[in-house]
Amino acid sequence: DSSGMESLDYEVIENYAYREEQERREKLFVVYQVVLKWFVALLIGIGTGFAAIFINISVENFAGWKFALTFAIIQKSYFAGFLVYILFNLALAFSSVYIITQFAPAAAGSGIPEIKGYLNGVDIHGILLLRTLFGKIFGSIGSVGGGLALGKEGPLVHTGACIASLLGQGGSTKYHLSSRWLQVFNNDRDRRDLVTCGCAAGVAAAFRAPVGGVLFALEEVTSWWRSHLMWRVFFTSAVVAVVVRTAMGWCKSGKCGHFGAGGFIIWDISDGQEDYSFAELLPMAVIGVIGGLLGALFNQLTLYITYWRRNYLHKKGMRVKIIEVCLVSVITSAISFGLPLLTKCSPCPESEASSGIECPNPPGVYGNYVNFKCHNEKEYNDLATIFFNTQDDAIRNLFSAKTIREFSAQSLLTFLVMFYTLAVVTFGTAVPAGQFVPGIMIGSTYGRLVGMFVVKFYKKMNIEEGTYALLGAASFLGGSMRMTVSLCVIMVEITNNLKFLPLIMLVLLISKAVGDVFNEGLYEEQARLRGIPLLESRPKYQMRNMMAKEACGYRKVVSLPRVIKVGDLVSILRSNEHNGFPVIDHTRSGETLVSGLMLRSHLLVLLQSKIDFQHSPLPSDSKGGSFLVRHTNSEFVKPVSTKGMSLDDIHLSDDDLEMYIDLAPFLNPSPYIVPEDMSLTKVYNLFRQLGLRHVFVVPRPSHIIGLITRKDLLIED
Amino acid sequence: DSSGMESLDYEVIENYAYREEQERREKLFVVYQVVLKWFVALLIGIGTGFAAIFINISVENFAGWKFALTFAIIQKSYFAGFLVYILFNLALAFSSVYIITQFAPAAAGSGIPEIKGYLNGVDIHGILLLRTLFGKIFGSIGSVGGGLALGKEGPLVHTGACIASLLGQGGSTKYHLSSRWLQVFNNDRDRRDLVTCGCAAGVAAAFRAPVGGVLFALEEVTSWWRSHLMWRVFFTSAVVAVVVRTAMGWCKSGKCGHFGAGGFIIWDISDGQEDYSFAELLPMAVIGVIGGLLGALFNQLTLYITYWRRNYLHKKGMRVKIIEVCLVSVITSAISFGLPLLTKCSPCPESEASSGIECPNPPGVYGNYVNFKCHNEKEYNDLATIFFNTQDDAIRNLFSAKTIREFSAQSLLTFLVMFYTLAVVTFGTAVPAGQFVPGIMIGSTYGRLVGMFVVKFYKKMNIEEGTYALLGAASFLGGSMRMTVSLCVIMVEITNNLKFLPLIMLVLLISKAVGDVFNEGLYEEQARLRGIPLLESRPKYQMRNMMAKEACGYRKVVSLPRVIKVGDLVSILRSNEHNGFPVIDHTRSGETLVSGLMLRSHLLVLLQSKIDFQHSPLPSDSKGGSFLVRHTNSEFVKPVSTKGMSLDDIHLSDDDLEMYIDLAPFLNPSPYIVPEDMSLTKVYNLFRQLGLRHVFVVPRPSHIIGLITRKDLLIED
Ligand SMILES: Nc1ncnc2c1ncn2[C@@H]1O[C@H](COP(=O)(O)OP(=O)(O)OP(=O)(O)O)[C@@H](O)[C@H]1O
Ligand SMILES: Nc1ncnc2c1ncn2[C@@H]1O[C@H](COP(=O)(O)OP(=O)(O)OP(=O)(O)O)[C@@H](O)[C@H]1O
Ligand SMILES: [Mg+2]
Ligand SMILES: [Mg+2]
Repeated sequence: DSSGMESLDYEVIENYAYREEQERREKLFVVYQVVLKWFVALLIGIGTGFAAIFINISVENFAGWKFALTFAIIQKSYFAGFLVYILFNLALAFSSVYIITQFAPAAAGSGIPEIKGYLNGVDIHGILLLRTLFGKIFGSIGSVGGGLALGKEGPLVHTGACIASLLGQGGSTKYHLSSRWLQVFNNDRDRRDLVTCGCAAGVAAAFRAPVGGVLFALEEVTSWWRSHLMWRVFFTSAVVAVVVRTAMGWCKSGKCGHFGAGGFIIWDISDGQEDYSFAELLPMAVIGVIGGLLGALFNQLTLYITYWRRNYLHKKGMRVKIIEVCLVSVITSAISFGLPLLTKCSPCPESEASSGIECPNPPGVYGNYVNFKCHNEKEYNDLATIFFNTQDDAIRNLFSAKTIREFSAQSLLTFLVMFYTLAVVTFGTAVPAGQFVPGIMIGSTYGRLVGMFVVKFYKKMNIEEGTYALLGAASFLGGSMRMTVSLCVIMVEITNNLKFLPLIMLVLLISKAVGDVFNEGLYEEQARLRGIPLLESRPKYQMRNMMAKEACGYRKVVSLPRVIKVGDLVSILRSNEHNGFPVIDHTRSGETLVSGLMLRSHLLVLLQSKIDFQHSPLPSDSKGGSFLVRHTNSEFVKPVSTKGMSLDDIHLSDDDLEMYIDLAPFLNPSPYIVPEDMSLTKVYNLFRQLGLRHVFVVPRPSHIIGLITRKDLLIED
Repeated sequence: DSSGMESLDYEVIENYAYREEQERREKLFVVYQVVLKWFVALLIGIGTGFAAIFINISVENFAGWKFALTFAIIQKSYFAGFLVYILFNLALAFSSVYIITQFAPAAAGSGIPEIKGYLNGVDIHGILLLRTLFGKIFGSIGSVGGGLALGKEGPLVHTGACIASLLGQGGSTKYHLSSRWLQVFNNDRDRRDLVTCGCAAGVAAAFRAPVGGVLFALEEVTSWWRSHLMWRVFFTSAVVAVVVRTAMGWCKSGKCGHFGAGGFIIWDISDGQEDYSFAELLPMAVIGVIGGLLGALFNQLTLYITYWRRNYLHKKGMRVKIIEVCLVSVITSAISFGLPLLTKCSPCPESEASSGIECPNPPGVYGNYVNFKCHNEKEYNDLATIFFNTQDDAIRNLFSAKTIREFSAQSLLTFLVMFYTLAVVTFGTAVPAGQFVPGIMIGSTYGRLVGMFVVKFYKKMNIEEGTYALLGAASFLGGSMRMTVSLCVIMVEITNNLKFLPLIMLVLLISKAVGDVFNEGLYEEQARLRGIPLLESRPKYQMRNMMAKEACGYRKVVSLPRVIKVGDLVSILRSNEHNGFPVIDHTRSGETLVSGLMLRSHLLVLLQSKIDFQHSPLPSDSKGGSFLVRHTNSEFVKPVSTKGMSLDDIHLSDDDLEMYIDLAPFLNPSPYIVPEDMSLTKVYNLFRQLGLRHVFVVPRPSHIIGLITRKDLLIED
């Protein structure tokens, strides 16, 4: 299960080559390093901003053409319109699933669990490659444009992360730039920082919510956070906001087709409910509870379905995946076209002039108060305005204030049940799929339902159903994804209404608490299912009574001597799958001494280059403790999310196998160590907080050389 | 210098008593623990909310009476008004400094550097006591009500922290509740979490900005952050928001005197500038640069002044401190009354009807467009509206939109210079003092000045000076405090205008970058000056080339044998000031073995209780490895920010000194260890990330027992 995954390491491997390099570096290099980091952050912002704009323009235009065409045709024949609609959607969905299955399998799904895993220290093969980036961009254009019950926000986070990772290593692994320029980013730690920036940029671009992006990266995806990283992430988000805003300003004049109508704020509801009374807190709490329940149910259902898909359906090959998506697409199209057809139309509200809303909309135009198969002139089809519409517009209609009683309870309920089912079924198909927008759709539907009841029962007050829809959306997302602060800020930023902040906080607290009773958050559950071994921030309770040596299972340690015969090394490497090997040396007096840790990937580099092979079985530093450095540090760097070298790719002659190699210059001389009887809680904290990959369990020390306290670490520049 | 300070420890001391307690605990205890943590978070929110409301009501009423009285008197005699005004202010300032110097010296200043130190692992005596809490509350009522150039926001953060700490230990140290109920919080880690909640609550209450509070706690004050803590902090902030909002609703009907006029948003500028063009980005960047320069200058000047005060002025005793504050108060009053008197009045703007602003205000009422010593009927004194006013109202006037050309450049410049000087001089006097509101005043003044120039030069556009004032405020705070995300959110939350978010981000980035060229942030500088040894999140560059054993200075380690004679123990404790001692044991075969770390405070508890003394010099566990537990874990807990026990308080008879004590049950059996040649960078990361107090430097291990990898830590419940 964990094949295709590898752990990452926050630790800097301070081997001889690294230390040599450090010493050779001038002060100017530090400046260069800082400048480059900021420059790459700028590029990440610009890149993600453009990717988001490109996806948005494409999706809006495909959807726009589709609805315009369908509406034009249904003026004559509903059946022909139906066919065109289904085929249009099918073509888009097919293109999406085709791209994914043929070129970029790692781009399926939302990608957030994988990125979360990456930032927690697990590198899953394929997730940060160039092909995944393209698959994600074009795939999500197809899947979102094709009207499936999924969103483009999750994929945008993945897109941002891919862009960041690729920029950090100077392009794709195959065709990458001279890495001399980017030597700054040749350790896992700097790369992770870049990916964190990328995530934030993705959210900032998706929701046009820069602060929300920073907080999302902080709260939901990263596992390590340093305050100076915060500033860089903040900068990246700000760049995204500027890029997106500029592009939207440019599009406003109609240069981007159907895209560019709205403002920077996606669903502006600044004219929502003005004030709220204490009596309203009860229905709002009810929304929170519903959100918790439905969200937890959503997590559980999608877990079952994904489990089934992974273990039965998707094992049958690519064709099954393609057929599945096509089927889902046809069903979705049929339901979203068919159900509104079967609904009765409602008469237009009378106060049309005051609110500036035309009812019904002129024929051939989609929007609010649409006349869809209505016999009467002054009627509109409420289900069509949310079902037979782009998701963005549907949400806008659901959030809309001053449109009290626009929707009938029956229509909302129908939509809720159908869309919830569709969202569950669509989840886990082989297309890029985000859960934010579907979540907002589901939540705002029941939120508006509750709002309608409140309007009925608390007659006197000035209650806006749209406000309740907003709270519903927050509650469902909270109940499913279990975020708090970031979700709060995102909701405020996408609706541009700060007044609801305390209400959103309340609803989120309740829905998260309710959801937590049943299961973990959506991304954690999915990560677990995919076998991504996330380390939570807290150690498990039973670790208090376990010791370090129990955890490493009394297994015999596979270790290497300092100078080893190449043949022996190869057979040791073949005999197991470990990635780290302790190196044991002997002192002059014959005692053993642990001299460090050697990584498998570094050993492979040495075996392939062969230049360090020597004939003598003696250490190579006999002349004064310094080594000849034949490698630069960057040779040892493994490209992100690729398989890396394998032992089978290396061809060694029989002569080679008889040679020796001295590992001393290449090993990590001081990995972190813990005494054998330390409680596992403490080991866990060490491992998790520092982002380690290997920790040595050693016997209790026999004596102590010194103590380090705060005072010893206060060194002035 | 570092007397009166002690390090804290995030590490849980897993001694025998602790492990016994852990084993005895049932599952239900975990539930109790969680419930109690949330309950205390609720109480912190409520407590801080009420404290904030109390301070606000008091300050607004004192200031209200003062201005009402003065305005009533100046209708007849400006001189009598002047006298009354000065005396009123003097009385308030005197009461403040009297409280501080006599009862709560630790409550002087803003308290944020100290809290930052506490959350970084340094406990400064006195900062979290009950008397400090009262000193802070009443002191800041006096100092803010007395019209000094300082704010109440910093003190509120300290207030929140005090409330949190006191609740966590069940009241003041002297009269505290049975700690049995609060055993949950008997380690430094849980207490620090509470204080983090308290900080967030303080900011949330001060600015009525719940999300800003969470982010402030996260970005500025804490050094360790775990995502599940985020949720608790968020909850506390939400509680504060609800409490404050409810209280304000109650006050609206006039029950709280002069307080309760405004809404939940302090300085609502929702009717600010609608849009901005690219050409405006240049003046905004200029604002950022000015903010960076003036902010850095402010930090530097206050640093010098505080240095001088600490080393010369305040050494001369309390009376000097009191006289100093009184002098500053008189000068402040004289300037704020006198300067407007000397200013020429301006004629009222013509478009009075359209904007709904009356000009001049009716006599005897303070507010905008005030007639202060104007000869003509239709005139107002622009300097008086910002200088001779409460700070909140002054900021409201500076931020106000639709009042173009209300202020003359000359008045603004006068105010800027005078207020900047006053703020610098007031900083560091012995009263509770926040820098947020003065910073906003200074910033919005030059922001508005820049705005006026923009209005002049870019004539065509619809530019609001108030918007520029807001950006100026952000830039000065950014240039001085160097926060980014939290400041951004706070600015948005206090002005209720999301549209400016990207602009605020831009300005903050520039001002922080400019400020960072010159010095560190205000709080870091002040912490350094006060000798609070903050550990930054990044190790220093030269640590890369240092080894662990170099850091601990080749000093001889003072260690203890496992069973020690009481007399020897006392003389060792007397001979040095170390707080931690390695304990060395012997195995059967006679080899030495490091068995753990003993804290001085625990040794003192043992010496005082005497019940563990034994006559035999042999280990006490000869019967099967288990010890008699005569202490509960909570006996070893030291109350927060007190001196703690001293060796001189313990009376030992000569017989006692001849007895022995076995330390094995009480020591921390597995402190973290590092090999002697580990680079100091890595040691620093270990120390800083885990929040440690002592790390053992040991020789390289001779052999290795096992390896721990991610897989070994993935234990299912
Ligand atoms: N050199 C080794 N000798 C003996 N046991 C090892 C060695 N390295 C790891 N182990 C143990 O083998 C088990 C599997 O670990 P694994 O080999 O997957 O580690 P790894 O591949 O080095 O690290 P990761 O999988 O996190 O990248 C773990 O329980 C670990 O304790
Ligand atoms: N038991 C000890 N034996 C020898 N040196 C020590 C011992 N404890 C601390 N030191 C050294 O003494 C110096 C001063 O440390 P200090 O005594 O203040 O530590 P502490 O009081 O235990 O911890 P803190 O001051 O952080 O609370 C440090 O450089 C430290 O390395
Ligand atoms: Mg492995
Ligand atoms: Mg000390």
